[in-house]
Amino acid sequence: MSRVSCAACKYQRRKCTSECVLAPYFPANQPKKFQNAHRLFGVRNMVKILDELKDEDQKSDAMKSIIFESDMREKFPVYGCVECISYLRQQLQITLQELQDVQSQLEFYRQQHPTATYPNFDR
Amino acid sequence: MSRVSCAACKYQRRKCTSECVLAPYFPANQPKKFQNAHRLFGVRNMVKILDELKDEDQKSDAMKSIIFESDMREKFPVYGCVECISYLRQQLQITLQELQDVQSQLEFYRQQHPTATYPNFDR
Repeated sequence: MSRVSCAACKYQRRKCTSECVLAPYFPANQPKKFQNAHRLFGVRNMVKILDELKDEDQKSDAMKSIIFESDMREKFPVYGCVECISYLRQQLQITLQELQDVQSQLEFYRQQHPTATYPNFDR
Repeated sequence: MSRVSCAACKYQRRKCTSECVLAPYFPANQPKKFQNAHRLFGVRNMVKILDELKDEDQKSDAMKSIIFESDMREKFPVYGCVECISYLRQQLQITLQELQDVQSQLEFYRQQHPTATYPNFDR
């Protein structure tokens, strides 16, 4: 039975065998996913990362993170996934500031009305 | 006057000229920084990223993000900088939940004491 080449082997125009370590992560019908990863890391570096991990789940997680970084680099050519990190840091800062503000307001109410109790107050 | 080879040229054992595009980002005294970036992306891919950006500030920001991603991959071989993204997402979730809780408590006090005013309440 003939084997469908994965996107990595298809791109490199080589025969995809059952030993192809990239095949599980780059299905033939998602060529863009491989192109982005190949463009940013190169096949050799991806294979090296896989070779250094023994556990199958770790290999899979590593490839997911590699593909995520590649897709982010395509989307944000200057910052890559640091764009995502900056956004999250900013959101966290805003939320922490808001939390501090609301806590100050709550503290004010507590001091004004020390006898009031909140149903789930001390959970 | 002889020019000190940057970490990239030193690693590749080649002469570092004034045209070396990697020299500004990989000083000779920080070889680890280059090794991590070289290991994850390879020199060719880094040069390609730089070539595609025209603005010097963008080139510099791109290299900072590349170096950050490389250092994260060294630190977290499976998740790379996705480790950082997951941590921030988790912190944001926790903080949003806490904010919601404190807002509920505040809302309770407001309903119990509708005439009370907070100094910076409506800012």
